[in-house]
Amino acid sequence: MLKINQHLTGFQCIRCEELHPIHDYHEGCPKCQAQHRPASVVPVYDKTMPDVVWSGSGRGMRRFSHRLPYCSFESLGEGDTPIVDLPRLAGELGMDRLSIKLEGANPTGSHKDRMSVQFVARAKDRGAHGVVAASSGNAGASVAAYAAAAGLPCIIVTTPAISPPWRRAIEMTGAEIIYTEDSLERWAIVRRMVRDEGYASATNYLDPPVGSDPWGVDGYKTLGYELAEDEATADIEAILVPTARGDLLWGIYQGLADAVSAGRRSSQPRLVAVEPFPRLEKVLAGQDLRSHYPGRSLLVSIGGATVTFQSWLAVTKTRGAAVSVAEELALADQRVLARHGLFLELSAAASLTGLRRLLQGGDQPPRSALLIATSHGYKESAGHEV
Amino acid sequence: MLKINQHLTGFQCIRCEELHPIHDYHEGCPKCQAQHRPASVVPVYDKTMPDVVWSGSGRGMRRFSHRLPYCSFESLGEGDTPIVDLPRLAGELGMDRLSIKLEGANPTGSHKDRMSVQFVARAKDRGAHGVVAASSGNAGASVAAYAAAAGLPCIIVTTPAISPPWRRAIEMTGAEIIYTEDSLERWAIVRRMVRDEGYASATNYLDPPVGSDPWGVDGYKTLGYELAEDEATADIEAILVPTARGDLLWGIYQGLADAVSAGRRSSQPRLVAVEPFPRLEKVLAGQDLRSHYPGRSLLVSIGGATVTFQSWLAVTKTRGAAVSVAEELALADQRVLARHGLFLELSAAASLTGLRRLLQGGDQPPRSALLIATSHGYKESAGHEV
Ligand SMILES: [Zn+2]
Ligand SMILES: [Zn+2]
Repeated sequence: MLKINQHLTGFQCIRCEELHPIHDYHEGCPKCQAQHRPASVVPVYDKTMPDVVWSGSGRGMRRFSHRLPYCSFESLGEGDTPIVDLPRLAGELGMDRLSIKLEGANPTGSHKDRMSVQFVARAKDRGAHGVVAASSGNAGASVAAYAAAAGLPCIIVTTPAISPPWRRAIEMTGAEIIYTEDSLERWAIVRRMVRDEGYASATNYLDPPVGSDPWGVDGYKTLGYELAEDEATADIEAILVPTARGDLLWGIYQGLADAVSAGRRSSQPRLVAVEPFPRLEKVLAGQDLRSHYPGRSLLVSIGGATVTFQSWLAVTKTRGAAVSVAEELALADQRVLARHGLFLELSAAASLTGLRRLLQGGDQPPRSALLIATSHGYKESAGHEV
Repeated sequence: MLKINQHLTGFQCIRCEELHPIHDYHEGCPKCQAQHRPASVVPVYDKTMPDVVWSGSGRGMRRFSHRLPYCSFESLGEGDTPIVDLPRLAGELGMDRLSIKLEGANPTGSHKDRMSVQFVARAKDRGAHGVVAASSGNAGASVAAYAAAAGLPCIIVTTPAISPPWRRAIEMTGAEIIYTEDSLERWAIVRRMVRDEGYASATNYLDPPVGSDPWGVDGYKTLGYELAEDEATADIEAILVPTARGDLLWGIYQGLADAVSAGRRSSQPRLVAVEPFPRLEKVLAGQDLRSHYPGRSLLVSIGGATVTFQSWLAVTKTRGAAVSVAEELALADQRVLARHGLFLELSAAASLTGLRRLLQGGDQPPRSALLIATSHGYKESAGHEV
């Protein structure tokens, strides 16, 4: 049932470009890791891999299966999420066009499903004892669901502050939840599960961090493919992506890079990372990628004190930016979007707040943009708002 | 922007078959209503209306816009929800095939969006003062979102027991919520809004009831079209539909009837209404359609004491059935489905419980079936489970 893409030849480091054999790289490029400069690896495919079939028949990520690490996998219906035009809001912002991609339409209600479906396929195929993730919400709910579908044991390491809807979604799958107060302790537990107990981790456990499992992250490029298919957003100037450690940001970059290579797009739009406090923003201004940039915010899905090389690279290669948004402003924009009919998770609504910052930012404000709404609004309980 | 289908010629009663002009029929067929036998009307289109373009390009309900009452409307990304195969669960049930249609992938997380998008288009186009719905959850969240997108005032009449996630989803859109303890009082409020204040109602307010606004209900036939497009479920024997007053049941029937007329399908599968306590089941056994069949259940989305003619007709015409399910069994099946990766609202998970009853039922248990998962699992707070 599970089948590795026959065109996959290995993995390549996105920093030093070293080639590595087909294997698992939870800790990124071994060479860069040895130099204390953690960097992700990405799957490399041979030149005979078929091109994307743009707007082909069928539905969901399976339409792109011939371009994914696992070209045969168990689907829960992930991918092909709607792109909705927001002309009234565009007008209010003085823009020509504003669109939004609703990743909450995925089976567990977030973009994470694009990653989980490939990550779990890999974990099962290689005989991992189980899967583990350190997560405050969406990744946990997603990995737990796909692990359940695959019949793999699953452990989600989270904090006691996890919101009840997420906790319930995870518990219902039969996954085990471990609570720890401290996020570094979370990573220590995951690291031990991976190194000593044969678990596959869907999330980073290093400090400084790397991107998540490269088999999984490659699933995110399907979001880029779907954007490249959409004629209405062909000339979009900027894409705003709620970002923690940049797996989704990287995947969108990769998918759109493939679209440019295939001649489907003439160039990449600017990729703009939206974050709850300045992290990548500081790194782009010259500070050390490996430092801690702590902060507290209600935007739990894009929290954390660290920055990854993949985030920096995706933004840099597309002449993008990083914009931090205050939680009060994001709360106001969550309401604005709901009053346009879209009830989103706070961290997803922050994409609009990030766009406002970009528009105020001075040089070359975009005339058109697309927001990535990573998740729907039913995940956070009302009590978490205040 | 909003445009009525030029092929729409009027409305026809599904009971007495009387033709009525293009207008609004919140109370169903006037002739049947005068005889105290309330029955819905359905849009009638002329014979030059183009056929469905099966598996055509594009995404969402707009693919079928030339077959809908409003062929131009403001979309929030509704439709084209996934159909997921569940081979392991089929095996456990001793069936050849089991599939599930995930309506939680719609923009507000339920099937209701297929109705709301057409209902709100009609309300706006005819200059209604606003829209109103009596709802304990999904209909309210959906109508409120589409009303917000259209800039129409919206009132949702509900009970104090509405779960916090639904309440918050409705409040965020800016809709007004009115709470009443008694469901008949709810209908009285809605009736007054419609008759005296120029509001359009998305839900029934009569006792005995009719189906909802026929402009809206016609949107549900797109779900039938999507089923008819899917080759993998072409030979499915039974479709299990969580049912209160049967709008969705009717829409699926209508869509599949169109597919049979167009030669896309040779016959209709059996449509099986899943209900929280015997209602339609009793009517099919000979009791009066217009009686009250009260009961209490945690399956709030399919609650209520009444039965509609459209439910009876859709089930009867397809040699279907009605099966009532106990809430404890539905709770167990909610967990079973989550352990296959699908976290659904309790009333949606009840479709599996209904299937079990059908399989135990004796004559001709289906070898293959499709469950309609009307909504995802994040709507109910954990406290509502016990
Ligand atoms: Zn390297
Ligand atoms: Zn009639």
